[in-house]
Formats: sequence, C-alpha cells, structure tokens
Amino acid sequence: MSAEIICVGTEMLLGDILNSNAQFIAQQLAQLGIPHYYQTVVGDNPERLKRVIEIAISRAQILIFTGGLGPTPDDLTCETIADFFGVPLVERAEIIEDMAEKFAQRGRVMTASNRKQALIPQGAEILPNPTGTAPGIIWQPRPDVTIFTFPGVPSEMYRMWEETAVPYLKTQGWGKEIIYSRSLKFWGIGESALAEKVTPYFNLPNPTVAPYAGKGEVRLRVSAKATSEAAAQDLISPIEKQIKEIAGLDYYGVNDDTLASVVGQLLRASGETLSVAESCTGGGLGQMLTEISGSSDYFWGGVISYDNSVKVGLLGVNPEDLAKFGAVSGIVAEQMAVGVKTRLSTTWGISVTGIAGPTGGTESKPVGLVYIGLAGPNGEVSNFEHRFGATRNRSFIRHVSACSALDVLRRRLLTR
Amino acid sequence: MSAEIICVGTEMLLGDILNSNAQFIAQQLAQLGIPHYYQTVVGDNPERLKRVIEIAISRAQILIFTGGLGPTPDDLTCETIADFFGVPLVERAEIIEDMAEKFAQRGRVMTASNRKQALIPQGAEILPNPTGTAPGIIWQPRPDVTIFTFPGVPSEMYRMWEETAVPYLKTQGWGKEIIYSRSLKFWGIGESALAEKVTPYFNLPNPTVAPYAGKGEVRLRVSAKATSEAAAQDLISPIEKQIKEIAGLDYYGVNDDTLASVVGQLLRASGETLSVAESCTGGGLGQMLTEISGSSDYFWGGVISYDNSVKVGLLGVNPEDLAKFGAVSGIVAEQMAVGVKTRLSTTWGISVTGIAGPTGGTESKPVGLVYIGLAGPNGEVSNFEHRFGATRNRSFIRHVSACSALDVLRRRLLTR
Repeated sequence: MSAEIICVGTEMLLGDILNSNAQFIAQQLAQLGIPHYYQTVVGDNPERLKRVIEIAISRAQILIFTGGLGPTPDDLTCETIADFFGVPLVERAEIIEDMAEKFAQRGRVMTASNRKQALIPQGAEILPNPTGTAPGIIWQPRPDVTIFTFPGVPSEMYRMWEETAVPYLKTQGWGKEIIYSRSLKFWGIGESALAEKVTPYFNLPNPTVAPYAGKGEVRLRVSAKATSEAAAQDLISPIEKQIKEIAGLDYYGVNDDTLASVVGQLLRASGETLSVAESCTGGGLGQMLTEISGSSDYFWGGVISYDNSVKVGLLGVNPEDLAKFGAVSGIVAEQMAVGVKTRLSTTWGISVTGIAGPTGGTESKPVGLVYIGLAGPNGEVSNFEHRFGATRNRSFIRHVSACSALDVLRRRLLTR
Repeated sequence: MSAEIICVGTEMLLGDILNSNAQFIAQQLAQLGIPHYYQTVVGDNPERLKRVIEIAISRAQILIFTGGLGPTPDDLTCETIADFFGVPLVERAEIIEDMAEKFAQRGRVMTASNRKQALIPQGAEILPNPTGTAPGIIWQPRPDVTIFTFPGVPSEMYRMWEETAVPYLKTQGWGKEIIYSRSLKFWGIGESALAEKVTPYFNLPNPTVAPYAGKGEVRLRVSAKATSEAAAQDLISPIEKQIKEIAGLDYYGVNDDTLASVVGQLLRASGETLSVAESCTGGGLGQMLTEISGSSDYFWGGVISYDNSVKVGLLGVNPEDLAKFGAVSGIVAEQMAVGVKTRLSTTWGISVTGIAGPTGGTESKPVGLVYIGLAGPNGEVSNFEHRFGATRNRSFIRHVSACSALDVLRRRLLTR
C-alpha cells in the first residue's frame, strides 16, 4: 500500500511556480507512515493526465492530486479523473450553496464558470474547502484505489489536508505507525569524510541514517518508524548519542539549530557578550546572529569595515600592518577582533576578512582565502585561515565565512 | 520530441527539501523552446528508478536527471542508468584528476568513496562540474534517447546547465524559436495596485505580461516568442517603456537588478560613497550592499548598533533622545544616519531601527514599526516611518526594512 502525489498544472511545466505542494504532502505522508515512492507533475491536458493516472494506479493505491480544480476552462482534473474511471459528474447542491455564500461574503457575484466547480464524480465524497471556492473530493472509484483532489493554492490545500484528509486517513488505519526524524548537523567536516566515520549506521533498518550535504554543512537524518513520537525517540536516542560521540566537535546541533543559535545558547548560559567586525561578509555575520529573536541579550553589535579606512578609524587596525600584510591576513583579522571587542566592551569579538571574489584574487591570496579572528577574555587572541576554493561563488564564500566565524567561537566556548 | 525531468532523491519523497531544480530546468526548457510534459520524482532506489526510465523513454526523448551523483552508497543515479541500458561503467582519469585538484585547493583529502564519482557509462561524455566534485554526463545510449545527469546541489546544477547543457542543446538545433522574458521589478507598490494600473497589458498575445509578487516586491514578466533574442527584444521594448512610464519611481530595475545594485550604479555614476547604521536589520543592509562584487567602490562600511550602548558610543546618538523617544523613533534614526555618515566620512548615510518581532512590540510601537534615517550632503537629514504589519514574521520584516532603506536612497538619488 503506497501513495502517489500527482500535481497538475502547466505553470509548473513552464517553471512559473515552485511545487511546494508536493513537499507539504510528502512531509505529511511521512508523518502518517504512508509509504510514498513517486511524484508526478503533468500539465492541464486530459490525455496526458489519463496516462499518468494509468501509471499511478499500477504502482500506488492512494492517489493525491493537487491543482486543476479552478473555474477556468483549463482546470480539468476532476472531470478527467471521472472520465478515466467512466463515471459521470453530478452537480452537488451543497457546493453551489457554499460557493454562493462565500461570494456574497466578499461582495462579489458568482459567475457561471464557478458552477463547474460544483460538479464531482457520482459516488465521491466532498472534501470541503473552508477558505476558497473549489472543494476537493475523496473517492474510491475501485476498491483498491482511493483518490483525493485538492486545489493548487497552497494555503487552501494545507487546511483541507489537515481538517479533512488526515482524519479520513486515520479512520483508514493510517497514522498508527509514524515516521519521526531528527536532523543532526555538522560543521567543519565534508560529507564523504563524515560518511566514512559513520558508514555502519547507513545499514540500520530502524532507525535509518542518511547523509545530506547543505551549503557548507553536512546533515545526517535519523528516521525511526514507530507507533508514537516517544517510541521513535527511544529508537533514535542511542544512535544519536553514538553518532555525536563519533563526530565530536564537528557535531553542532539538531533540527532547527543554527550555528548562530548554538553560539547564542552558549553565550547566554555563560552570561557573556559578543561583537563582530566584518570585512568580506559585509554584515552577513551580524545578520545571522540577529536572525535569532532575543539575540540582543548577548549580541551587542559590530563594525562593517569594508573599506580599510574603517578598519583603521573605527577598529584601530595598525595602518603599517595593513600595508605590510594586507587586509586579508591573520594579523589584521586579530586586530579587527580585538578592536571591536574593546570598543564595544564585549567578552568576545570575532572578525572576518577575506577575498569573496569573483575578482580581487592573486596567486598568493586566491579567491576563497579567508581569515577569522577571535579575541576573548584575558587578552586571548587567535586567527584561523580558511581556503574555501577559488571555484566557489561569492555568495557561497561569504556564507561559509560567516558560518566559520561562528564555528570558531562555538568550538572555543565548548573547550574551556 | 520532448524532454522529461527526473529528480532522484529520497529526501524529496520525505518532504525534506523543496524541488527547486525542477522549476529551474522547466524555465530553461521553455526558454529554449523544448516541449516538456512530465516531471517525475523518485527515491534513491534502483528498481523504481529503472521503472521510471522505462516510462520516460516511452514518452520523451531527452531525459534530464538531477540528484544521486554524490559519493555515498545511496547515490545511484549514474550506475542505475548505465545498468538499465546494459552498458558498463568506466573510471575516467580526467575526473579523478579534477577531483584531486579541488580537494587539494580546499586543503582536504579525497576519500575512497569519492572515486565512485569518476565512474560513468562507457561512451558517455563528461558534463563538467566547475564548482563541485560530481560531474554529470551527456549520453546517447540509443539514437532516440539523450540523457543528461546533474548533481542535486542547485548552484552546481545551474552552472553546469548554463555552461555545458545549453550550448550542447543549441548544437542539436534547439533554441531557434525562443521564449525570451524580461522581469520588470517594482518597490513601494502592492501587486493589486500595480495590476490595476497595467490591466490592459495582461491581454496582449505577444509579448505576454504577467504579475508576480515576491518578498515585498512586485514583478511583471514580459515574455516574447521570437526567432532570436533581438527579435524578442523588439517586441518587448515598447511595452517595457510604456509600463515604466506608468509606474514612475515605483519601477526600480529589471532581471538581476536588485535595489542594492541599482543604488550602487547611481552612487558609482555620481562618484559618491555610502555607509550604514543598522539596528533591527543587524547587518542585513550591509550584506545586501556587499553582495554586489565591486561594491567597495562606493560602500565603505557601517556600524551594527544592536545594543543602545553602541548607538551612543559608536554613532553619537544623544542618550537623552534615546531615553525620551526610544530607540525606535525618527529622531534616533536620523542621529544614527548622521553619526555613521560623519564617522565614516561618506557622502550618504542610511540607518534602520525598528521592531522585527516576534516579541518587543507595544500598543504604540507594534512589531513591524521601522524608521529609516537618511543623511546626505550639506547637512540634509530626514526620516521615514514604515509599518510592515504585526502579523509578518521577523525574517520578512528585516528583509523589507533593509530593502526600504535602499529604496529611500534610490528615490533621493533619482530626484535631485
């Protein structure tokens, strides 16, 4: 028994919209423990849609359609499904009534084209749409096929799914066994290097462990199938603990944790404060820190020292060192970090200076060369060199530079 | 002749990631005039992937795969395709060399599992990956089937598509009748208000005009079908000119233009410089400005004055005004802008102070209340109040606040 998601709409074939409905339904199916192996996108074309239905019923028993329920002539999902199974459409008075009421509420007049939305296959149940005009259906045209249709508008679809589809699927016995996942996050280690360290875990049956590479970070998703979230947690916990031990400091957090939120938790716990001095990231490091609501408890601010005059004037970087070693150097990174920490009177100061590209690189200082400076209590100061690679683009280099600065502080706070 | 997009990855079936690759490729196919009727998503499962290939070659001649090219055991796309067509994999020395070089650049060691990425079907061409390690292939396993594979990482896929796949498809005769679009961008006007001003244009046959709402901005896509880009431009130009005239200052740019890039062009043209003082945006305004390569010509830096002590200490905001009017006030915004402009000796200074939420709002100063300060030559100074709405989330409010600050300066530079 498995489900297939079929999204109908020429706008997806033209790339005009992102298919976020498929992601939502996929997440929901996983949570309910309903297996799901295929997703299909097809245009507003009855013949092609019929071929898609034919394939789908050969490999799945629950077919979930989104899109093509609107009032315009190219909205053909419902009639095409009915036609495929050879069942006539019938106009349902309760849909007409519901639509008339909604139009009246908005001070608009229902048009003739809206009547089309009241036609559903004989024998199908109405899947009510509380916010929009187009209802969906729940229909078993054959004992081994259950069909759900939803409009393409995401907000309408989400509510209909939660209010009607989920309770229906639960009455059919789904949701007794759920899939619950935790996403473990790592920084400072590549996907293949991490994968080699935890290879045996990839063969576990329950929970399963699978790696994903993000923008400079690696994640391991640990997913358990169980009868409740608590039972799933019990399966996941020992594995999660073992993986964390293997990964050591390269592990930084789970699920919605970010490097900025983890650093924030550590600073809040120790009652310390932070300021930043940014050159190549131009404000991106401060932005990451302040994306966390409540970050004003520990983050006091910083200086964007994009021009060298600002490094000297506002941060007190030594102009002779600037001239001798260049703005992209360990010594300037250190002076920036000390400068911002001192001027803003914070416990810690971190700095970033580097070559984000695409221009500005030289043989000795290529694009992707970045120095992080760290200044802390009792006059401690250090710097870290990174080479993110001259083939990476500006946006990537800036992103991983800011993340690396946070990671430097995170490791320091965890090892004292 | 048509193309089918096949995205491989269990993470999409679990709803962990949004399938943005399908949207990108769909847009690109439309631009090249390549018909495209189906998209399929399938997990990292060789048997199911083979069934998908079988269906795809029965209805399309160009198969475009994304995902499953990584170094881990669940990355199986390339070997499964080879296996389907009964062709052996061969290790290509040039791929090994390229990978070794990239690992060396990043100071990392290539692992044994990476060698797998050098295996491609006998007879296939390498589709080079300039930024990541996994190359793709271009392969005609049969005269009527052309296969492209791309990694799932969007940034890698985009570049490989543009640099190798598009030129290849053009040599195959595609792209003779093209769809060429220009995306006109607007700030400071809502979608429905703009739509009402340009309603008649929505009924044009060629070029077509369609509205899209983005994050606080509105776009009008003007698309023409023609035999060349120049011919399409000729169709688009008069319409574009008329729409710009109707929109006035609300129009800010086209295609890849951003508010930051447009402001940068204006500053570069006038030989002027800019600095920023940021409270609620926490660095986001500086980040937008420095996302533009070459922005160091006019952007000198700024101060992230998240804590009030930084507003006073580094920007010279009057502590009495801070106490009397609060940090989120027009007068403090003005003092922040004047302070940063003076201390960094720039022509212009812009500032942002506001309540990004979700906490911190009061009845008189709700979440979403933001003040922009602008300081310029000859002592000019002004402030602008925005209310972005208490129902908006933190990330949205911060984003539109930074954009609005840029927009204030843009309008000022255009009206003198």
